[in-house]
Parts: sequence; structure tokens; C-alpha cells
Amino acid sequence: MRDQLAAVSLNDADEVPRAQFSDRVPIRSIVSRPDRGSGLVGRKARVGGWVKTGRKADKDAFAFLELNDGSSAANLQIIVDASLGDLGQLVPTGTCVVVDGELKAHPNPKGKQKVELRAQKVLHVGPVDPAKYPLPKTRLTLEFLRDFVHLRSRTNTISAVARIRHALAYATHTFFHNQGFLYVHTPIITTSDCEGAGEMFQVTTLLSEAEKLEKELAQNPLPTQADVEAARLVVKEKGDIVSQLKSAKASKAEVNASVDELKQAKESLSKLEERSKLKPGIPQKDGKVDYTNDFFARQAFLTVSGQLQVESYASALGGVYTFGPTFRAENSHTSRHLAEFWMVEPEIAFAELKDDMNCAEAYVKFLCQWLLDNCLEDMEFMADKFDKGCIDRLKMVSSTPFVRVTYTEAVEILEEAVKNGKKFENEVKWGIDLASEHERYLTEVKFQKPVIVYNYPKEIKAFYMRVNDDSKTVAAMDVLVPKVGELVGGSEREERYDVIQERIKEMGLPLEPYEWYLDLRRYGTVKHSGFGLGFERMILFATGLENIRDVIPFPRYPGRADL
Amino acid sequence: MRDQLAAVSLNDADEVPRAQFSDRVPIRSIVSRPDRGSGLVGRKARVGGWVKTGRKADKDAFAFLELNDGSSAANLQIIVDASLGDLGQLVPTGTCVVVDGELKAHPNPKGKQKVELRAQKVLHVGPVDPAKYPLPKTRLTLEFLRDFVHLRSRTNTISAVARIRHALAYATHTFFHNQGFLYVHTPIITTSDCEGAGEMFQVTTLLSEAEKLEKELAQNPLPTQADVEAARLVVKEKGDIVSQLKSAKASKAEVNASVDELKQAKESLSKLEERSKLKPGIPQKDGKVDYTNDFFARQAFLTVSGQLQVESYASALGGVYTFGPTFRAENSHTSRHLAEFWMVEPEIAFAELKDDMNCAEAYVKFLCQWLLDNCLEDMEFMADKFDKGCIDRLKMVSSTPFVRVTYTEAVEILEEAVKNGKKFENEVKWGIDLASEHERYLTEVKFQKPVIVYNYPKEIKAFYMRVNDDSKTVAAMDVLVPKVGELVGGSEREERYDVIQERIKEMGLPLEPYEWYLDLRRYGTVKHSGFGLGFERMILFATGLENIRDVIPFPRYPGRADL
Repeated sequence: MRDQLAAVSLNDADEVPRAQFSDRVPIRSIVSRPDRGSGLVGRKARVGGWVKTGRKADKDAFAFLELNDGSSAANLQIIVDASLGDLGQLVPTGTCVVVDGELKAHPNPKGKQKVELRAQKVLHVGPVDPAKYPLPKTRLTLEFLRDFVHLRSRTNTISAVARIRHALAYATHTFFHNQGFLYVHTPIITTSDCEGAGEMFQVTTLLSEAEKLEKELAQNPLPTQADVEAARLVVKEKGDIVSQLKSAKASKAEVNASVDELKQAKESLSKLEERSKLKPGIPQKDGKVDYTNDFFARQAFLTVSGQLQVESYASALGGVYTFGPTFRAENSHTSRHLAEFWMVEPEIAFAELKDDMNCAEAYVKFLCQWLLDNCLEDMEFMADKFDKGCIDRLKMVSSTPFVRVTYTEAVEILEEAVKNGKKFENEVKWGIDLASEHERYLTEVKFQKPVIVYNYPKEIKAFYMRVNDDSKTVAAMDVLVPKVGELVGGSEREERYDVIQERIKEMGLPLEPYEWYLDLRRYGTVKHSGFGLGFERMILFATGLENIRDVIPFPRYPGRADL
Repeated sequence: MRDQLAAVSLNDADEVPRAQFSDRVPIRSIVSRPDRGSGLVGRKARVGGWVKTGRKADKDAFAFLELNDGSSAANLQIIVDASLGDLGQLVPTGTCVVVDGELKAHPNPKGKQKVELRAQKVLHVGPVDPAKYPLPKTRLTLEFLRDFVHLRSRTNTISAVARIRHALAYATHTFFHNQGFLYVHTPIITTSDCEGAGEMFQVTTLLSEAEKLEKELAQNPLPTQADVEAARLVVKEKGDIVSQLKSAKASKAEVNASVDELKQAKESLSKLEERSKLKPGIPQKDGKVDYTNDFFARQAFLTVSGQLQVESYASALGGVYTFGPTFRAENSHTSRHLAEFWMVEPEIAFAELKDDMNCAEAYVKFLCQWLLDNCLEDMEFMADKFDKGCIDRLKMVSSTPFVRVTYTEAVEILEEAVKNGKKFENEVKWGIDLASEHERYLTEVKFQKPVIVYNYPKEIKAFYMRVNDDSKTVAAMDVLVPKVGELVGGSEREERYDVIQERIKEMGLPLEPYEWYLDLRRYGTVKHSGFGLGFERMILFATGLENIRDVIPFPRYPGRADL
């Protein structure tokens, strides 16, 4: 049995401080204190949040609400007396509630919760009809939740992912800022194709312009040749009238009036002629779409990487990075592909491959340590619900020097494994692109720690990677980690004008679109290196979740772009 | 006359520490110290950068290079002895140079530079042919530089803008993180139209798919009806052969062989039939583009704002913000419009308009103070070259409480001004949308400080803004600042289901696309508020630059999307 709520009168000094731009105390600042709030017993607080579970008790004299406001994984228990409102309206899962109350010691001192809030006033209720609410209290699969991206952030898992994602983003900016890197916003709409072969989304106004015109023509059809002829005739007639009046020495007023009419007729004609030139549909030239009529007067795409553009800033400002959305129009339905995803791409001038590897290793370690220092509660949730080993993995990666092996050594290790009976689906021999199974063998089985593989065969790598002195390999590197395999891919960039020009040709790519990129080598060229980290991969690695669609707020993939 | 370079032998302890992931000392860590480097005299350093100006002296015995590496606005003077290399190759503007050397006191102790570097070894030269280099030493207009977005970050102005832009981005993340907000990546590709009337870019694979098909058909034309008939005949013949062999009790081998041939014929036929259904061009249905064949199985666009989507996260996690690229396909050629620009959009649950105004004011002040604390050197450059008042403006905004007036009061003030002889191009009366001239009058002339105008007529504002009790106005607010006028626009959002549904209908918008948005009001609705800050506007405000194309690295506008 609980005590009756005493009528307490408290002054402001007794209140737990509210958030600066809101009318309530974030629940985090009560329950996530080191003392879990026990030092706040007796203090007044206004809290707001959404009911996780609610139930009536003591013959409907009270309701218990587990309230969560997203500020932390933990809930605060609220006790509401029936005198304060309609308890039936308060208890459904998903209900929004704001209450004033007093913090009391939790009756079960051995539980996780050290305090609970006895409501003194219910200030707001955002009700839920449980019969209609799509996210009932029962356990819901992540797959089911993907149909409700606008509501799923209210669940324990997706809100924990949101906090982890925020932490990793903030850690990213903190790391690079502290290292003196400048954040550069590379363009989303681009006319360059970084990889030279990417499946790219097109950005256009041609379709909507054609639709607009079509709609307009449906209401107001194109003038026929006869309409134009008729208008021409009117002009001629009006012209004749003017001539007649002039030669008849009509009054100035009469002549002026007829001249005005002639002017109007000419205007109508010219509008009609202009309009008769309109062509419905997508503009064409020589049997192809005429992109000179598109918004940017040429074909434009969504970027697949900001690397080439950010190189131009590195070649002026030293250390720079881009962190933004990138796009692939691949028809992939796997758990590892998205059409829209975020990438972190640093680029460092005056840096060689070893510097690049050092930077990638330090950055990945920093991210792992950051989560351990700042998101332990959410990581514990992940360990509990999805991946027992995820916290140990973060600890291991943040504290273990990454193994570094050349591609050639890596292939030898894999061949040795095959000799000893290890079966791979993909054949192992020098020259292959390492498959995911190979990468995971190296990091999970052979070394059981992060591995950087470097110096790959040039045939399997992009044109912009620096050719090594052996002329067979390029100064590329991939960081492999347990759970996801490749997390980072990078390289020293080819800074020698002649060599890179040759490489572009070798790859069968046209030179013209890369002239600006070649300019960076023509004028004041500099040794530089960089890498890309797939941000969602990092979250999969950290949380142990399996599907990339669950670690981005609004996933886009073939057939789906909700909201 | 300068001393001959002494042969100095220095050990590592004498060296200025290099950047962590690079082989050189950022020039900033020499020249931007409080003592401008004078405490480093006698120390060894490796520096790299690009020559701003270079000249040979003392009958070509030496070269003087003003070297900049983008780490700060200031250069470091390098003295290179002719014995170290081809001085003629070192001096052209734009040349990349890496040298080892020793820091010496600058011969002119009254100048800005306190130290210079005597080169001991030239490690790298990235040469420039001055006859071809597009950015010679002469003063270049910002307009001219827009044709060289890949090189313009090497100029004093654009590199200063890059550092200021970075500082404002980092300050943005710092501010919101410190306030407990979570960074949410709202989608770039969207199927919602936030404003209900935006001119949006379309994202599609239909055009490229059609082009791909067309290319393929040019090499390999569609089968004709005759081709299909012929294939059908073959199937019939092969079938007949099978029957004949069977009834003739031919050997099993013979029958099997004929069955195989029949199978092959059937496969060829089915491929041919499949292929004959291909239709070149954009897929159509009922005379319209059939978007069910597009990548997302419906029409998709580039976002004009992340607000609606981020509201869904606020309605679960409390304080959130989005900071990302947004797009308008407006055919605007002004100095204030871009097709791709960045917006900061916080959204706060349990917050009213006053909280929103408090947040916007605190954020803008924080940005201004941050620049004063972290970018003074670059701000001094801006004050010197572009806008004398820019530093004072930052000081004023960071320290002055913002004036707050209702829209109704603002209109009265403007009407009063008109009575007193002030001429506006746009008529002033209650109900108008304030024009830029009105906004600037309020902030620059009347109050001479930042002004927040709030409670606007509902007719001129978006459907999602909360209707006030007067039923005439909505809880919207704009922050106006000197130099740019409107910098922030925000509102309390309509959280009442019935009211917002009515407003959507009133505006003539369809309900269906907003059902998910209505769900946020149907289930656990919460009072919430937010705003948007145009990031480039903030940079224009800070720097005093006039054209928005100069404050984003890669500007996109009608007819232009370089790189």
C-alpha cells in the first residue's frame, strides 16, 4: 500500500532545474545521475514523456506509469492519484503525459530505479486509442517497425540507436575538429561521377516541367496553324484600317485608337506564335533527351562520394573532411545496402598512406572509446537485447593496436588457411578482390582484432589511388573489423600528373570530366591521402544490429522512401 | 643583407611538433600563437603549403616565399638559398613547397610576422606554370573565382570563408549537443513536400533506364511479330519430332536429345516474348509517367526541409535537430538564392513559442560569440576587405537582448514610419507578408539590434503553425538581424489533431500524404516548437559578403553545377 499523497507546497528552489528551452526536466537528469536520482528525493519536478507501460492499481485509486522522454534509455515511474484525472486515459502505451510532482524514494530500494515521482498535477495528456495505436506494448520485430518509421523512434531499440547515432556523429566532429581538420560541405547534386561506374540517381526538373506543360495544354490546347493564320489576318486587317484612316486624314483620336488595336493584334499573334512552338513531352535533340533544357543545363546526379571534391579543398587547406549523405541507385535488397547513406570522408594534404592508416585507426578507436564513455546505458541495452559481445568489441577495438598486413601477405594467409582445410566460397589467389568471407576470416579468426590490409593490386582499385614503385599495386588500404568486415576504405591519392592521366585512360574513362581534377595535379600538386567510413556500418559494428535499415532514421531502398 | 645559412644540426627535440597525421607542422601552430611564433626561434620545423607570393632577391642568391597552408589566414615567410634548388621553380604563385628549416626572428620586429623559416632542405615542389595558372597573384573578383570552384579555396577570401563556415558548423553541433539535443539525419530523398507548394527537384532512374534500354535496342533491336511467330513454329516442330520419336519407340538417347532441343526452343521463345514486351522510352500509364517503375516505385524528390520528419523524432526523443542540405528548384538568379543550401532545424518537444524564441536567440548569440572567440583573425580579414562593421555586428548581437514585437506591433511601427515620410516599395498594412525592406527597417533603423517578430496572420503562414486563441494569428516567429534581414523562421507547431486537419483542408492540400504527420497528433500528441536557420545566410551575416554563391564551397544555381 502506498501513502496518500500529501498536499505539498514547494517553492522554486525545491524544483529540479528544467531544460533551458522547455518547460520540463529531462528524465535523464533525474535517473541517469550517478546516484540514479536518490539525492533528489523531496525535490519537485515537472516531467513530460510517453507512457511505456501503465496500469491502474489499488482498485483504481492510483495509476503507475513508466514514463520515457527519449533523453535516456531509463524510464521514470510516475504515481498518479485518481483525483488528478481520468486514469483510464493515462495508462495506454504511447500516451503523452506532462505532470508536476515530487520525487520520492522508490519503494523497492534494490531495483534499478531509485526514485519515483508522485504526481501533484496533470498538466497535459496526449491520449492514445489503444485499439488503433500501431505500436502496442507487445514485443515488435524490427522488420514490423520499418513500416512505421514515423513512430518507431518511440521504441526502446530505435531510440537507443538514435542516441548512439548522435553520439557517433558528435564524436566524429569532435575528433576531426580537435585534429585541426575543417568540415567541408561537398555537393549533393553533382556532375562528376567519383567511381566512374556508379549507378547514380538523376536529379531533374524535366519530368515535372513536362507534366506541368501537359496539364496546362489540357486546359488550354496548343494553337493550330489555322489559329495562327487567323491571327495574322487580324493583324493585316487592323493594319489596313490604320492605313485607310491615315490616308483619309481621320482625326488623331481615331488613328490612335486604330493603332492601339493593331498593337494588340500584333501582341496576340506573337504570343500565339511563341506558344505554337511549345512541344509536349521531354525535350529531345537528335533522338536523345536534351539536357540543355534541364535545371542545370546538363545532366546532374546525386553524389556517390564527396572525395574528389573534398580533395580540391585539401589541396588548399590541408586537413579537411566531409560528412554527408551519399547515394547509390543499386537494385540491392540486402541487409547491408541503402540507396541513401552517410559517409565520413577525411582528406589530408602532406600525408602518405601510413598517415592515412594512423588517422583511420585513431578515428575508429576514438569512436569506440566515445561510446564507452558516453553511451554505456544504451550499449548495455544493445548487449542485453541483440549482441552480448558488443561492449567487449568496443573495448577491444579502442585498446588494441590494429594489425597491418599487405594484400600480398593477406592472400598468403588465406591460401595457408585453405591448405589447412578452411573452405571459402570464393577462390583465393593473388589478384582477387577480397570477399567479405575473406575479410572476416582475417579479422575474426586469424587475428581476432582489427586488421588493416594495404597495397592492393591496381587492377581492382580506382584510378585515383597512388601507384606503388612495384607498378603492380596501389597505396590503398581497408580497415577490417569483426562483425562487419570492411569498415574503412582509403588510399594515398595519385598526385603525379602524368601517372594519373595515364590511369584514367587505362581505365577507359574520358579525360574531359576530370580536367578540373587534373588541375589539382597541374598546379601546385601535393601528396595527399584520405579514406571513407560508412557511417551506418559503424553503427552496425557498434550495436551488433543486423540490418542497416534499422540504424538510419528514414531508410531508402528499392521500392521504399517513406515520408 | 641576410646572413648565410649556417649548417645547423638539430635533433628531434628541437623540432616543432608535426600534425598528428601528416609530415609537417601546420603554419597556424607557428604564426597564430599568442607570441606569433617568437618563442620558437631556433627550433627546427617542416612546413608545407602553397606560395602566395614569391620573389628572388640578392642577385638570385635567395628566394623569399610567402607560404600559406590554409591552417590560418597568416602566411609564414620562407627564405630559400639558391644552393637548395631551382628558385625559379619555387617562386610562382600557387606552387606547392615542403621544406625543412629553422625558425629565425623576423628581421622587421615591428611587422606582423615575428618569425621566418630559413630552409635547410627542399623536400617537395609541386610546380606551376604561371602562364597557365588560372589564379595569378593579381586581385581577382569573387565573380571571376566562381568559374574556378576547384581552385578558389586557395585564395585568402575563400579560405577564410571555409574556416568561418567550419567554425559555425562546429559551433552548431556544440551548442545543441550541450543542450541535450540529438542530431537526427532527416532524409534527402523524400516523398513528402513540407511546404505543400515547393518547387522540388525530382530524383529518378527512369531517364537513365530508358537511355540504357535505348542503347541496348540500338545494338539488339526488339523482336518483330514475325520473329516470335518463327520461334513458335520451331517449338511446334520440335514438339512434333518428340511425338514422332516417342510413337516410333526411338532409343531413349534419341528421345532425350529431342526433348532437350524442345526445351531450348521453348526457352528461346519465352525470352523472345518477354523481350517483345519491352517498350522504349519513359514508361507510361493512362497517358502519364508510370512511376511504379521508378526506383522507389513512386515519385520522389529532394527535400525542401527536414522539419516534418524531424518532428517525428521530437515526438519521441524531446530535443532534436537536423543539419543538412535542402533544395529548391526555383529559377532564381539572385545573390540570395541557391538550388542547394544547408539548414539547421531544431525541434523541441514540451516547448512553446517563447521557448522557441529563447532557443533561437541563444543559438544565434552562441554562434556570434564563437566566431569572436575562435575566428578573430579571419573576421579581421573580412572587416579589412569587405565589411568594416562585421566584428562590431557580432559583438552587438552576441551581447544585446533581442527585441520582441508582435507582428501587429511591427506593422504599427512601419505605418508610423510611413506617416513620417519613410518610403517603402511595398505597401504596409496588417495582413501583408513583411518584405525584406520592412524587416531591415525594423532591425537596422528602428531598433538597431536583432528583432523577433511573432504572431503572424495565419493566412500568410504554413498549415503546421499553431493557431492562437484570437483565431487570426499563428504562433510563428522570425528573427531579423541587420545586414540580411530574416535569419531564422520558426513556430510552435499545431499539436491539436482537429485543428491541424482543418488547416490542411483550408489550405486546399490533400490529407492523404500527411496521414503520417497526423498520426503524431493522433497518438500521444505533444506541444512542440522549432525553427530553421539558413546556414549560408548566417555566413553572409557574419562575413558581410554579398553573394551566397561565395559562402558555400560548391554553389548550385540555374545552369550551374560545377564538379
